[in-house]
Amino acid sequence: MSEINTTDLMSVCKRRGFIWPSFELYGGVAGMYDYGPLGCALRNNIVEVWRSIYKGREGFVEIDSETVNPREVFKASGHLDEFSDYITYCRECQAPFRADHLVKEFYENPDVLGPRELDAAFAEHGVRCPECGGELGPVDEFNLMFKTNIGPGSARVGYMRPETAQGIFVNYPNLYRYNREKLPLGVIQTGRSYRNEIAPRQGMIRMREFNQMEVELFVDPEDKDWVRFDDIKDETIELVPNTTGEMVTMTVGEAVERGIIANRVLAYFVYTTRQLLVRLGVDPARLRFRQHLEDEMAHYAADCWDAEVLLSYGWTEITGIADRGCWDLSRHAQFSGADLTHFKRFDEPREMEVERVRAKHKALGPVYKGKAKDIAAAMESLTPADVVDGKVTVSVDGEDIVLGEEFFEVSRVTEKVTGERVIPHVIEPSHGLDRIFYSVLEHAYSYNAEEDYTVLRFRPEVAPIKVGVFPLMEKDGLDDVAMDIYRAVHTSRVEAYYDGSGTIGKRYARMDEVGTPWCITVDYDTLEDRTVTIRDRDTTEQRRIPVDDVPAVIDALLAGKPFSEL
Amino acid sequence: MSEINTTDLMSVCKRRGFIWPSFELYGGVAGMYDYGPLGCALRNNIVEVWRSIYKGREGFVEIDSETVNPREVFKASGHLDEFSDYITYCRECQAPFRADHLVKEFYENPDVLGPRELDAAFAEHGVRCPECGGELGPVDEFNLMFKTNIGPGSARVGYMRPETAQGIFVNYPNLYRYNREKLPLGVIQTGRSYRNEIAPRQGMIRMREFNQMEVELFVDPEDKDWVRFDDIKDETIELVPNTTGEMVTMTVGEAVERGIIANRVLAYFVYTTRQLLVRLGVDPARLRFRQHLEDEMAHYAADCWDAEVLLSYGWTEITGIADRGCWDLSRHAQFSGADLTHFKRFDEPREMEVERVRAKHKALGPVYKGKAKDIAAAMESLTPADVVDGKVTVSVDGEDIVLGEEFFEVSRVTEKVTGERVIPHVIEPSHGLDRIFYSVLEHAYSYNAEEDYTVLRFRPEVAPIKVGVFPLMEKDGLDDVAMDIYRAVHTSRVEAYYDGSGTIGKRYARMDEVGTPWCITVDYDTLEDRTVTIRDRDTTEQRRIPVDDVPAVIDALLAGKPFSEL
Repeated sequence: MSEINTTDLMSVCKRRGFIWPSFELYGGVAGMYDYGPLGCALRNNIVEVWRSIYKGREGFVEIDSETVNPREVFKASGHLDEFSDYITYCRECQAPFRADHLVKEFYENPDVLGPRELDAAFAEHGVRCPECGGELGPVDEFNLMFKTNIGPGSARVGYMRPETAQGIFVNYPNLYRYNREKLPLGVIQTGRSYRNEIAPRQGMIRMREFNQMEVELFVDPEDKDWVRFDDIKDETIELVPNTTGEMVTMTVGEAVERGIIANRVLAYFVYTTRQLLVRLGVDPARLRFRQHLEDEMAHYAADCWDAEVLLSYGWTEITGIADRGCWDLSRHAQFSGADLTHFKRFDEPREMEVERVRAKHKALGPVYKGKAKDIAAAMESLTPADVVDGKVTVSVDGEDIVLGEEFFEVSRVTEKVTGERVIPHVIEPSHGLDRIFYSVLEHAYSYNAEEDYTVLRFRPEVAPIKVGVFPLMEKDGLDDVAMDIYRAVHTSRVEAYYDGSGTIGKRYARMDEVGTPWCITVDYDTLEDRTVTIRDRDTTEQRRIPVDDVPAVIDALLAGKPFSEL
Repeated sequence: MSEINTTDLMSVCKRRGFIWPSFELYGGVAGMYDYGPLGCALRNNIVEVWRSIYKGREGFVEIDSETVNPREVFKASGHLDEFSDYITYCRECQAPFRADHLVKEFYENPDVLGPRELDAAFAEHGVRCPECGGELGPVDEFNLMFKTNIGPGSARVGYMRPETAQGIFVNYPNLYRYNREKLPLGVIQTGRSYRNEIAPRQGMIRMREFNQMEVELFVDPEDKDWVRFDDIKDETIELVPNTTGEMVTMTVGEAVERGIIANRVLAYFVYTTRQLLVRLGVDPARLRFRQHLEDEMAHYAADCWDAEVLLSYGWTEITGIADRGCWDLSRHAQFSGADLTHFKRFDEPREMEVERVRAKHKALGPVYKGKAKDIAAAMESLTPADVVDGKVTVSVDGEDIVLGEEFFEVSRVTEKVTGERVIPHVIEPSHGLDRIFYSVLEHAYSYNAEEDYTVLRFRPEVAPIKVGVFPLMEKDGLDDVAMDIYRAVHTSRVEAYYDGSGTIGKRYARMDEVGTPWCITVDYDTLEDRTVTIRDRDTTEQRRIPVDDVPAVIDALLAGKPFSEL
């Protein structure tokens, strides 16, 4: 494995059209990047692999929801109150800074410090403005959502979503109906999310506008198994449990049996994440799954694992896989008043002891006369939870009537019950698409300093261009044959690239630099015997194949046939 | 063609998971819709057809740029000053209204009225608040971009993009380099755009957050031809030229020859739009191409055509195809100061008379001594445009030196010139993805009122589910065979749907209602002879085919093989 030359990699990315800093024409905006032609193709290919696993293999459904959301959504989700960083402004030059970043050399974990602790840390360590040396102002909270208004005026506040997940949660009633009121219910969504960073650095690792691939799997809280768990239980995985902080390799089955991963469905999707990342080209030797520390885990999460890859930035989280319990649906049920439960039918009806509100008809009659019957019916539709301070309130003919304990009793009765309502738990594999994209680039990157030669060793499935097609010379009809081959191979899914200029060596180098797995060269022999040279990027091996076989050969190679067996 | 029962169509869309009004849990937000599982699949299929034409057939490149843009972009594009509607608020209830909508019964074209004309129209026609009958306030301009701030504080104002096109224009230098400084340069982008409507109605036709598929083709202003024009010049198309306002059907070639469509490249992409829409399932009998009226066309546009489809809303624009001239790149060049030209190399160098600034060395020497040589060199790199009021300014060793006409002359000289710089023109087919989606739905929709039976006659290529798979009964192993068939067929690209409940007739009805072209039924004969029934949605015809042939038969049908030839 070659040492990562990040400067060369970023220069390749920009020069060859993978990634461009946004708005360079107008001086640029930090934390924003555009995907150029090759980057867009690579990214779309990554999304397709993810889809093939979740939609294809697992049969999950995909939705696409809005990015501007009204305030209510983020009040319920907690983002309005919790999604913030600590900020300080220089008193002299007014430059804003993320407060915890200014003290990171003094603390191992500066993001646990509160605002007053950060103020004190500035004083203690004599921290001043990194720009001008000025004094820093008091530390304050800064909410990271982009804020806007929906419609004219400021009557309806909206925010750009900080995650795609909420669009799935707020559609739970629709999705549950679509799934014919059954669990498990797996839903995926890919799209943009937004995080208005105070002062983003670290390239594609911290973007103000970023892309996610999120999966929300709603499960029965009492059934945290997965139908295909046995298929992968003997596979090994690299885990860093929070009890030891040391990396261990063990089978998925063992991780569950020993209580390291909380349950089988979570373990299945931790392993699925490993399958996905390795298939995309992440180096397994630079991939691990780290369990959140107790104090790092959200209070509601039953268990949470981060897929971390080793990048030039150090170990970096690129996917999180969490068992979020009933948190998300409980919050939205609470704030919206909607029923977000699952009706769990028992295999056969059960005799259960339940508490019921019973009207005392004899007491009601004399007092309420003709209305007594309606009042009694209304009372019996109440549950014991509706009894407040020994009284219940019912509405009859538009009139609210308050009734004391002389008119009802709460009694325990035995009933046949066909099922119960439960709030589904959520298993969430949440993928940072841009971070995965960047990891695939770094792990594909290979630079030979001696020859100043760069190769991106993309897996063929994700490579933006699959085939380079070259005429040896752009004359004598070689160019016509090459163009015919290009046309026969190139589609919107299998991209080909025609290149007629420069030496063949230079053309190979251009294709190696953007990770094209195979190149076809049309030469003078082609005019004689209708064969062409096909070259393999990683071995630089060459073979001759008939012109007419090119599309079928490319299909076979893409399906996994080894080049050596051509 | 059945009459459109819009209520039934929208109810199918919602019930079956095509489209859901957003944020219903919190009371909803007008003009916002989420794509459910079937809608998301249908929409993704539409995008793939568009990609296969533009990326596949035409070889254009795709990019993906940011949705939050800094103010400068929209100052240059004109959106900051021009992208607005007229608004009025009721003085009583404060409800906001789009002013032109309130007078549409009195004027044929109310959107040409200015704010004072609208005030006068309210007075003249006694228009009052449609909500409460109150008096309307003065008409004002309302910019339709969602506004936000990038980073902390309000120092950097940003807007959600109102079109994806600007992300392509501001990347022109990167794209031009990617294309090795050649024209034509075709670029596509799909993604979200935003329009903060005052009071959106009309369902998916007017969304606050919408999806576009835009194409920007940069061409040499003197070469408005297209390499494949001859392939389509004899095809006919339905045009409504602005000279007559009457629909005529003619060949594309004739439309160009008679000067009805401005040039061949524009005509080619008008026709390409027709190909795309018909392939997606738009009914050609409800499709026409209307030329913008002179006063409707942007002042910079050379020619502009709208693809209009007949919907229950009337004739509705779903795609615009414009020759935008040099407008976009000129504006960004002007506002950014960047060079956004194409260097057009002449076939062979031309002798041309050009004006040059020449230093008068004899005058410079005595005055500027040792610096004279550097000053002369700096002056000769100037162009005649740098001469202001008979003076030029040059910078030598960090010092600005102003020189009068005694030190230089502007002379005409003959030089060999290898090429010239031109600002590319832009041909733009801009597709409203949600409107196309809705048109495909309406034109696929067929409702039999007598039997209360709905069929969505999607073209197989775009149908969200391609195959329904049913066991006659969920027992005796029929369900196992059906599940095996489901697994063999279902991928993220070819979606299958397993359904084991209800009568077969009911299951066919469910699949017809969501436009599934084919259904497979496993019955008791299957256990004997390993054949299954395949049913065609549109003819309801049934055939028996071997179980093992199912995947290949579905592939063949998707590739266009007629059902009757199975």
